[in-house]
Amino acid sequence: MAQQPTFQRGGNDPGLDNPSRRNLLVGTAGTMAAVSLLGITPLARGEEPKTLPDYAAWKERTALIVHSANTMETRRDAIGQGVVTPSDRLFVRNNLPTPPASIVANRDAWEVRIEGVKNPKTLTIGDLKEIGVSTVASVLQCSGNGRAFFPHGAGGTQWSVGAAGCILWTGVPLKDVVEALGGPVDGAMYITSTGGETLPEGLDPKTVKVERSVPTRAMESALLAWGMNDEPLPLTHGGPLRMVVPGYYGVNNVKYVKNVAFTKEQTDVKIQASSYRVRDVGKKGSPDQPSMWEMNVKSWVTSPLTSGRKGRNMIYGVAFGGTVSLDKIEVSLDGGKNWQQARFLGPDLGPYAWRPFVLAADLAPGEYRIVSRATDTKGNSQPEGRIDNERGYGHNGWSDHGVTVTVS
Amino acid sequence: MAQQPTFQRGGNDPGLDNPSRRNLLVGTAGTMAAVSLLGITPLARGEEPKTLPDYAAWKERTALIVHSANTMETRRDAIGQGVVTPSDRLFVRNNLPTPPASIVANRDAWEVRIEGVKNPKTLTIGDLKEIGVSTVASVLQCSGNGRAFFPHGAGGTQWSVGAAGCILWTGVPLKDVVEALGGPVDGAMYITSTGGETLPEGLDPKTVKVERSVPTRAMESALLAWGMNDEPLPLTHGGPLRMVVPGYYGVNNVKYVKNVAFTKEQTDVKIQASSYRVRDVGKKGSPDQPSMWEMNVKSWVTSPLTSGRKGRNMIYGVAFGGTVSLDKIEVSLDGGKNWQQARFLGPDLGPYAWRPFVLAADLAPGEYRIVSRATDTKGNSQPEGRIDNERGYGHNGWSDHGVTVTVS
Repeated sequence: MAQQPTFQRGGNDPGLDNPSRRNLLVGTAGTMAAVSLLGITPLARGEEPKTLPDYAAWKERTALIVHSANTMETRRDAIGQGVVTPSDRLFVRNNLPTPPASIVANRDAWEVRIEGVKNPKTLTIGDLKEIGVSTVASVLQCSGNGRAFFPHGAGGTQWSVGAAGCILWTGVPLKDVVEALGGPVDGAMYITSTGGETLPEGLDPKTVKVERSVPTRAMESALLAWGMNDEPLPLTHGGPLRMVVPGYYGVNNVKYVKNVAFTKEQTDVKIQASSYRVRDVGKKGSPDQPSMWEMNVKSWVTSPLTSGRKGRNMIYGVAFGGTVSLDKIEVSLDGGKNWQQARFLGPDLGPYAWRPFVLAADLAPGEYRIVSRATDTKGNSQPEGRIDNERGYGHNGWSDHGVTVTVS
Repeated sequence: MAQQPTFQRGGNDPGLDNPSRRNLLVGTAGTMAAVSLLGITPLARGEEPKTLPDYAAWKERTALIVHSANTMETRRDAIGQGVVTPSDRLFVRNNLPTPPASIVANRDAWEVRIEGVKNPKTLTIGDLKEIGVSTVASVLQCSGNGRAFFPHGAGGTQWSVGAAGCILWTGVPLKDVVEALGGPVDGAMYITSTGGETLPEGLDPKTVKVERSVPTRAMESALLAWGMNDEPLPLTHGGPLRMVVPGYYGVNNVKYVKNVAFTKEQTDVKIQASSYRVRDVGKKGSPDQPSMWEMNVKSWVTSPLTSGRKGRNMIYGVAFGGTVSLDKIEVSLDGGKNWQQARFLGPDLGPYAWRPFVLAADLAPGEYRIVSRATDTKGNSQPEGRIDNERGYGHNGWSDHGVTVTVS
């Protein structure tokens, strides 16, 4: 039915495993079918691989669009209507080759160095687990989610809406760790986290190292996380330890985190200094431009995507406010001329989580442009259009994220 | 580490798959290890099967204690610290052989008959999905969870603490369906749900049919659920459609539900009339005895279970109030002489959900009897002892549910 995800899981349920459908979804036909389901013009790209790379082999292939070995997007029809995204459907985006599985063989022995505090110290995950623990629901979203909607052809992975998910993270509150080490040094302005990936040889480390600085205001909610959806944080998603900054874009949630420093300046590596900077089309990135930190208010419809049926249709979607709780979600069936308030579905997991929504609509035969618009409790609302920018970051315009649904 | 689950998942993460440990957990040694982890005297029973039955083959073998082909319990050290139980770790308890997978091949076509309303009607799941939708977090717990702690040897599956989990159920509110059909007939006192299992031949249907009546007050929260943890409800757990009565014992959550009737009387089938009745040891079951409906307030420690270490230990557990929100959770390290208030961990998913809890304790070498005691917002608190009853139902006494932990 239009209002339910059409993808089929493999192992979940013997009765669900439909070989013909699975075959349809893993070949060229599948790629086309998946792309068409996105409600956007199919993008020129090679055939998707039939299988997932080893480090992500445990994920649900039929729920993903594989852009490359390091970039996999959740299909729009596989996002679901849940308050939490099942781990095996979550998107994947790695900046560097994934470290060997050996780093999660003895998780509690993993070490992270804490610097820029009164008493700098190297702590193991085992140590961190004794300092404190918290579980926070937060949306993980790539800065470029929605890039495919930019007409100027912004470079980078052509994410549609599926580079996002809502995850339950478990770890120690960063502020508890910092407090245990005497607090930040005077004048600390940023929290700078460094990933533990092995850097490719022959390249200037500054051009490839994953190291991100976020303002110290993020300390209130940041976690050093070892758990995801009540399981040990998978290697695929940054395990054994990841810096989680609730409400901040994905890149700030540094994987395999090896070093956390309170610093007066932002790091000068490329991923911070010139990448993930919002600037006009054609401009180069530089430190004076806005960095991709707090996420903006956003929503999109997840079902139906292409066809509805005469009569009652349940319109589903997801909405979130970044670091701010949501006030309301509205849906329009006529491309934004008239709006109706939709209803949030399921428990509220907090300000950083997304909220699925649903609207019951009785539709006559015809074509409908279905769009959604979220508003947070500070009055921020999604704009109609997009802010064109060189790299296609932070797109939360409601118009481009709409879907055209035919009811017959 | 003591404060983390020691079970290892298979497919989740290449780095997690430890063959030697997996072997340890699937043979006789594994059974013994698992039982000893329960903190109770090992029970006399045959070796556990190495594999799961086909209808449950997708579940995480290492997280389960297999009592029989129809009864599998979540290991105490696999319950985790999450607000939601991952589906592949949830316990399984079927009263009859599982229907064929063919019944979930076309889910939306499944039919349920609604009777005892002004306008009785047969509806498909497709129809139900157009009436309304809600997602509710609720603890699913077998009436006999804790039966293994009764000294008189209550008959039935010897569940320890693992016949329980907290699930996100998605479906249509029963009251929306009833309202659409004109409301209940006058004098309706019970909601009687019937399962769609094929009954074994040669037996009086009344002795085997799964049909349960709950008071009409349950209509306020009951769902006809087609989804579990944002996936189609697995056949293993009652898919394609299950009656979910939040806060009520598992047996009332009728699987493969085919008929829902508003009735003046409770059904007279055995599972209602004489089974699931609380009575003194040695007595036979009868309709005048209390039926297993609303769950009582309960909690138990999930980690550590046997050994801690000198210094800081994080003590984890889960607590729930049945149909009532929790007020507080207390933990005692000395078998109930002194109590400390523990902290709830993670977002509150509502009155029917469980809440993980944690207490940081600095322990010197020695032996500790760790027990937990939950209190709900109506002032109901777990008793110290158990109420002995023939079938070992509804045990929420804090003493038996404690664990003895050695710190060296």
